[in-house]
Amino acid sequence: MPRHLTFGVILTGTGGPGEHNRWLDPEIPGDASVDLDWYTEQAQAAEAAGLDLVFIVDSQFITPDSPPHYLNRLEPLTLLSALAARTERIGLVGTATTSYNSPYNLARRFASLDLISRGRAGWNVVTSGDAGTAGNYGLDEHYDYATRYGRAAEHIEVSRALWDSYEDDAFPRDRSTGVFLDPDKLHTTDHRGEHFRVAGPLNIERSPQGQPVIFQAGDSDEGRDLGAKYADGIFTHAASIPANRAFADDIRARARAFGRNPEHVVILPGAKIIVGDSDEEARDEELAQHRLSNTFEQALGELGRPFGWHDFRQYDLDAPFPDVLVHAERSFRTQATSIVEHATREGLTLRQVVELHAAPRRSPFVGTATTVADAIEEWFRAGAADGFNIYVSKPSQFRRFIDEVLPVLRARGLARDGYTGTTLREHLGLPVPANRHTAERDTAAVAARQPASV
Amino acid sequence: MPRHLTFGVILTGTGGPGEHNRWLDPEIPGDASVDLDWYTEQAQAAEAAGLDLVFIVDSQFITPDSPPHYLNRLEPLTLLSALAARTERIGLVGTATTSYNSPYNLARRFASLDLISRGRAGWNVVTSGDAGTAGNYGLDEHYDYATRYGRAAEHIEVSRALWDSYEDDAFPRDRSTGVFLDPDKLHTTDHRGEHFRVAGPLNIERSPQGQPVIFQAGDSDEGRDLGAKYADGIFTHAASIPANRAFADDIRARARAFGRNPEHVVILPGAKIIVGDSDEEARDEELAQHRLSNTFEQALGELGRPFGWHDFRQYDLDAPFPDVLVHAERSFRTQATSIVEHATREGLTLRQVVELHAAPRRSPFVGTATTVADAIEEWFRAGAADGFNIYVSKPSQFRRFIDEVLPVLRARGLARDGYTGTTLREHLGLPVPANRHTAERDTAAVAARQPASV
Ligand SMILES: Cc1cc2nc3c(=O)[nH]c(=O)nc-3n(C[C@H](O)[C@H](O)[C@H](O)COP(=O)(O)O)c2cc1C
Ligand SMILES: Cc1cc2nc3c(=O)[nH]c(=O)nc-3n(C[C@H](O)[C@H](O)[C@H](O)COP(=O)(O)O)c2cc1C
Repeated sequence: MPRHLTFGVILTGTGGPGEHNRWLDPEIPGDASVDLDWYTEQAQAAEAAGLDLVFIVDSQFITPDSPPHYLNRLEPLTLLSALAARTERIGLVGTATTSYNSPYNLARRFASLDLISRGRAGWNVVTSGDAGTAGNYGLDEHYDYATRYGRAAEHIEVSRALWDSYEDDAFPRDRSTGVFLDPDKLHTTDHRGEHFRVAGPLNIERSPQGQPVIFQAGDSDEGRDLGAKYADGIFTHAASIPANRAFADDIRARARAFGRNPEHVVILPGAKIIVGDSDEEARDEELAQHRLSNTFEQALGELGRPFGWHDFRQYDLDAPFPDVLVHAERSFRTQATSIVEHATREGLTLRQVVELHAAPRRSPFVGTATTVADAIEEWFRAGAADGFNIYVSKPSQFRRFIDEVLPVLRARGLARDGYTGTTLREHLGLPVPANRHTAERDTAAVAARQPASV
Repeated sequence: MPRHLTFGVILTGTGGPGEHNRWLDPEIPGDASVDLDWYTEQAQAAEAAGLDLVFIVDSQFITPDSPPHYLNRLEPLTLLSALAARTERIGLVGTATTSYNSPYNLARRFASLDLISRGRAGWNVVTSGDAGTAGNYGLDEHYDYATRYGRAAEHIEVSRALWDSYEDDAFPRDRSTGVFLDPDKLHTTDHRGEHFRVAGPLNIERSPQGQPVIFQAGDSDEGRDLGAKYADGIFTHAASIPANRAFADDIRARARAFGRNPEHVVILPGAKIIVGDSDEEARDEELAQHRLSNTFEQALGELGRPFGWHDFRQYDLDAPFPDVLVHAERSFRTQATSIVEHATREGLTLRQVVELHAAPRRSPFVGTATTVADAIEEWFRAGAADGFNIYVSKPSQFRRFIDEVLPVLRARGLARDGYTGTTLREHLGLPVPANRHTAERDTAAVAARQPASV
């Protein structure tokens, strides 16, 4: 096991999905989701602990049933640009959708973040699970899966081409000769694909990490292929060691099939970590936190989300779970399918499904610092995770992870003790991608040096 | 003259248009345009001096003939978000085009900047003068003027509607009742226009200034109407007192015709300010700076810009200025027209036009601190300007403006001494726009209280 654990921290304000009442916790200011100082505190604490990255999730469609953090939040790159100015070393990964962005615009924004942070930017590529986003961008309906993932792949390809517009030595900025630009090192993009046409070049140079790091989040077959083909990191759910081990093996096999080194894909399940003085105290805290999550009514409303915010209030609560999968076709289809399959398999009513969603889900990472460290180590050694994207329930719990769990992992040689590099790629142990035009030129030069007969 | 002078500072790194060799000045780091710390120093100096705003211009199309700052620069909102984290009071105005952005995305980004800066965001609305931008967004050709300005107006309308998604009291966040959101104060947008369809709502609350401030830059008839109808501020060229007075009168007349209070449109010509110990020394400095601007070759290349980067190298330099206005039709038409008209009127050759562009243009704001202050006062009192957007040639010159010119203006009661408010609207003396839904509700309530017979 050569690599240490990678740790991201998912910064939210008033909670995540399913957390409607988290803001009632006295530690959480009601306006945390839109307060830069709140995020700054968490990011600086994460950086002081040497964590690899902060991670911002996103959505662009709300209903009054959306949980508080979704109702009122900052656009991820705006937030990360501000955090770039208040941190020095930690990676900055933001979620942005390929379904409702133009590649030139988005590639430019990530390149800019990458430069102002001196090589710390990452892009979590999503295709927008919330189908209603379409209505905010002039469409009657969200794209189907083939189009969503087709756009995503092409969007990444174009972005990478744009990010190579300038070779690394394109700007001599030589005061003695007065030469600012070497025009031979500036390249247009000339992309003409199925979904996008982009002439280029991009008007910004590369950062010390070459290109922003790519994360991917989406569990379907299409999503896994996208991640295996392009991503440096994968964000996924933490189900169980066997399930996540199978997921990781699958991703690595796909990466190999795409001709990639599977070591260059860092897989991070999301982990809710709760630390107590005893395992029991920690479980009690988990229960107490859960009571702040959602009521039956709130869970009933939010259950609609994977099904394109379908309204479940119209159904008899005590009848069998309704036949609604069709509504998930262009939304969170993978997640919706697993809900429906579970209900069918177990013969559950709608009420039972909602109760399951409103009931405490036990996280594998709850207990004393040693218990949590043991669980983390077990997942890591089993090949179920290369690290974790941590959900922070509240600052005091984040402190306990930093002050109590991390030292145990460090003592076991599993966690880095401070930063060894300055860029996100260095934190993740990933190579800097060579500029394609430089590489081409070098290959051509090598070929030219070969005797013609060889 | 009730209002004081408004001062913006245009932050660039290695210079602006026509400044190809500014980076040779030892005060300008070669990578200033992409260095957050460079911008931070200027912004913090501007804030310490109590200036109203920093201003970032933009373009998304380059050729090897583009000046250094254009070749390699940060995306404006990324930069401003970072500066928001490093400043407290100064306004943050960023240029963004309505031709190649989606309203939901852009409105969200400005709203986020507005919140993280606690009410200091401004949007300089442009339609993209560089026609080549179209190729970076999948179009063969840039929009014609009617479409460009039609989109601009509709984009602003939708943005303002999105910014009113939440009424100011939409979030009770009442811990005693557990009520986070008052759903009656959340409003969809339901916009269906000629260019955009946007369902809304936007997932972000309003800032202390209600909505981001709107600037406009574009001098054509269409541009003036757009500014007069929607803008809180206008960015324009500084030509001469009579020309700018006529421009200002025209804008104010149009604003009145749109039913607006013309006092609520702040007109800021761009001003190059150079201060010396004597008027002569300042003129010498202007000349020295000009020598760093461009060579004949560079001026010949950049002359193509208003004409859609038309290549003038193909013409006989000593023949009459060629008939090329058609190429400006979808680019900087107003600017190109004035170049052509001037050449025709004076019977100039191409070489003479280029020489004029490469020759020192004398700024009206060059001299001792008193000379500069006199000129500023004269423009202000003549109604030719409500203030200025200052081009900073280099930090030492910016310091002289701050340390020498501003105190003179303050002593004359023309410039503010420090901030009196915290938001950009307060700096500019502009009212906070009432949320449209609150206003509607209030009007309805008043109507309901009237006796039916009145
Ligand atoms: C762990 C995880 C995190 C995700 N985060 C986001 C997100 O922040 N924003 C978003 O729009 N979609 C997010 N998605 C949704 C995906 O982009 C995708 O649209 C959705 O999962 C449906 O695709 P799938 O069936 O491939 O999972 C996430 C998906 C997963 C599995
Ligand atoms: C003072 C001034 C500043 C401008 N700044 C920008 C800018 O930063 N980015 C941009 O794309 N266009 C900029 N423009 C261009 C306008 O948006 C517009 O496209 C162009 O001026 C042509 O329109 P017009 O004929 O109405 O002036 C600027 C125009 C003026 C007059």
